[in-house]
Parts: sequence; structure tokens; C-alpha cells
Amino acid sequence: MQQAQPGHFYAVGIGPGSPDLLTIRAMRIIESADIILSPQAEGSNRSLALNAIAPYLREQQVMNINYPMQRNGNNTRERWNRVAKEVLEKLKQGKSVAMITIGDPLIFATTSYLLYGLADELNRAKIHLVPGISAFQIAASRFHDPLTLQEDRLTLMSATDLVAVKNALDHCETLVLYKAAGVIDKLLELLKNQNLLKSSKLISCAEQGDGELLVDNLENWRPNELNYMTTMIIRTGNRDWRE
Amino acid sequence: MQQAQPGHFYAVGIGPGSPDLLTIRAMRIIESADIILSPQAEGSNRSLALNAIAPYLREQQVMNINYPMQRNGNNTRERWNRVAKEVLEKLKQGKSVAMITIGDPLIFATTSYLLYGLADELNRAKIHLVPGISAFQIAASRFHDPLTLQEDRLTLMSATDLVAVKNALDHCETLVLYKAAGVIDKLLELLKNQNLLKSSKLISCAEQGDGELLVDNLENWRPNELNYMTTMIIRTGNRDWRE
Repeated sequence: MQQAQPGHFYAVGIGPGSPDLLTIRAMRIIESADIILSPQAEGSNRSLALNAIAPYLREQQVMNINYPMQRNGNNTRERWNRVAKEVLEKLKQGKSVAMITIGDPLIFATTSYLLYGLADELNRAKIHLVPGISAFQIAASRFHDPLTLQEDRLTLMSATDLVAVKNALDHCETLVLYKAAGVIDKLLELLKNQNLLKSSKLISCAEQGDGELLVDNLENWRPNELNYMTTMIIRTGNRDWRE
Repeated sequence: MQQAQPGHFYAVGIGPGSPDLLTIRAMRIIESADIILSPQAEGSNRSLALNAIAPYLREQQVMNINYPMQRNGNNTRERWNRVAKEVLEKLKQGKSVAMITIGDPLIFATTSYLLYGLADELNRAKIHLVPGISAFQIAASRFHDPLTLQEDRLTLMSATDLVAVKNALDHCETLVLYKAAGVIDKLLELLKNQNLLKSSKLISCAEQGDGELLVDNLENWRPNELNYMTTMIIRTGNRDWRE
């Protein structure tokens, strides 16, 4: 998979936002694709994805796709089915299309919706997925902290449902929470009650330039305004290979 | 982080085994490091890691480190403390050292042991982690299958403890199992009893050349001899955004 092929579709993970955190494969596909599809939730930071691939842009056509931030099953399906039709049209014209996604295209990513929309119409051999470094990986790398060893269980989930979060704390050794910003006060209260504040870490905008916030221990930390790209890593300590 | 710096240590994830699945950052660190540390469990496939970085090797010194496959807390600690001492010696001499790890250095990786060994002796600012594409990411990309969406919980663990595996099936929407090869018969029996065979997928040696095995649906599949690098992805179906 060295070069984007005519009539082929590529879902490309571009990692957390730094141009050197793309894989070499992602870079080559982006460099050689005719069309770059850049989807973005309304009101979110589009420049993040475009900055990450800026060094690899030359003559490619960049198509910006907006979708609503609010979730609504029918609207989401309709929006992405329309995008799928547009993409299929370009592919039929012999263009190669690469859709870029911050992080990994199969981990909490809108790519999935487009894949569902394309699956029925496009030969599977013309669809390619290129994995990318996900937010939890860059977060862990900034803290120098192993995520899992040996029989540890690692769970990734959204922080939005606090009952589910509390439950998850009992069923893994490391819990990664996305979307922690919107529920941060209640989340800190929960972690305090579980005596887990000092084994919890938080990161915003990892490797995205000046705005990076690293909190190594939440015990004496009070939240300010948090970027929505905030990830939390909680060590529940149920198992430990060192013991 | 463009070039490896004198006296600095880099734990570099090199992805599943294909040279184009390294990040650009990993490639640059490997290209510029004085010493490449290549750890390998005895009896496992060393050439996999060295083939993945072969295009980026020039004058670097490659140090092969062997460690026993059997697990034993004290032996493991001793072995890695000896490696840490050797690494510290080289760093003091002003060399840059890059330790390579298949996958991601913080996800089920021996890198962690060396990091523990270095943490007390080396200034944190001289330790750098470079994330890599993990086995579950390349597995999902080969199946074109979203791992998680919205409120889905994704859990990663070793398959070795089947009681823990059974329990985990109740607490996530997607379960990724490493080390499935050694317990494959009992695992298939468990999945059959849970009526999950047809939503379970298996992959061996993903993107590692000729030996790749992809099984999209385990329902009518009978295991042959399996490579130890076998990953399983099980969709438990508890939640589904499409409903």
C-alpha cells in the first residue's frame, strides 16, 4: 500500500495532531491521494487535522465535511449517507479518496459511519484502513506510564455515563476515559470517593502544541476550563506484576 | 523530537512488523540513534522487529537482549535491572539509545520493565516514549470493523485466564484478546456457550507478510496450529448506535 490507487477509498488515522506522529503509510497515502476528505464536527477545531497533514499537501483537493455535534441516529445516518454518495461519485470518476481522522479511524471515530455507508456499494478490496496513534497512547507516552502488563485489563470508554464509569472501575486495572471535560466535577467526586484521585492522570491536547495540559496526580488539582480533547488515565490497582 | 539526543533514552513502538507502519517520529529516532536495543523473548521471532526497522538501519550499533519467556517476578526484575545498568553506562558515555518494541511500548510490552529500571537513575527529561500501532489496531483495520463508537466500552486483555475472559464479556461491547493461541480450544468452547462465535474474529501475524491468517467469523472454523501472535476481537453486542 505505497500509493493511493484510482477508485480506491482510504480511511487514514493521522494520530493526535503532530505531523511526525502519522505512520509512514498514512503519509504516503495522503501525499498520493487525489482527494482528501476532512470531516469535522461543527464548532470543533478543524485546523488541528489540517495542520497535522500540512507538510504532506501539494495538489490534492481538500473536501471539508461538516456534521452536527449533537447526536441523533437518523440525522447522523442521513448526513453520512450523503457523504458516502459523494465519495462513490468521485471514486467512479477514477479518483482516489483519503478520509483523514485524528487518532485511529476505528476507535471512537466518525469514520465508522462513512464505512457503513460505503460497505454496500463499494467492493471491499477497494476500501483500506490505515491505523493511527490514538489519544490514549500519546497520553500514556507523555506520562511514561505503562498502560497494561501481563494479565492487566485495559478499558477505554467515554466518561459521559458516570454509572458506567463507576462500574468499569471494578472490572479493569487501567481505565481510559475520553470526553472527561464535560463531566469533570462529578468525575473528580467519584474518584475521590473511590480513593483513586492520586492514581488518576489527565491530559488535554497532548502533542498539539502550546495548549497541552498534563496533570500527573489529580489529588490537589482543581479544574479550570478544559478543552474537550481531554483524556484521563486511571490506575485502579487491582493487579500489579511487581508484587 | 526530530533526532535522538546524546545521553537520551527512547522507547520506540515500531508497530506490527511492516516498515511503513512506524510513525515518522519512530523512524527518525531509529535513524539517528547511536544504539538500537532489540529485546526478544527466548524462542520468539527476533527477525520480525529487525525486518520492520531494516530500511532505517545504517551505522547504528544493534544490541540484542534476550530474556526468558517464562514469567518469574524476581528473575524478570533482575534481568531488566542488568539491562538498565548497561543502558545507563552507554548513556553516560554520551550515546543515544533507542529500544524498539513491536506494537506500542506501553501496551503489554517488556519496555515497561526497563522503564521501571531506569526511572530512579535517569532524569525524566532524558526518557522519551514514542507510541506505536498496537496489534489490535492493525487487526481491526484488516477486518474494516469499528472497535468502538459513542458509549461502547473496549477492553484489552490476555486470553490466558478464561474465568476473567468470561467475566469481561459482560462488561464491554468489544473485547480484544491477546495470547489467544495457547487457550484456543477452551476459548472457542466458551464463545460457543455464550453464542458469540459468529461475532468473533481472529487474526494471526497481521501485516507480517505471508503467514497472515484472517478468520472473519469463528462459527465454522476449526483451529490449526496457531502462531503465538494471535489476536481475537469479540463484539458482545450489548450496545449498538445503529439501533
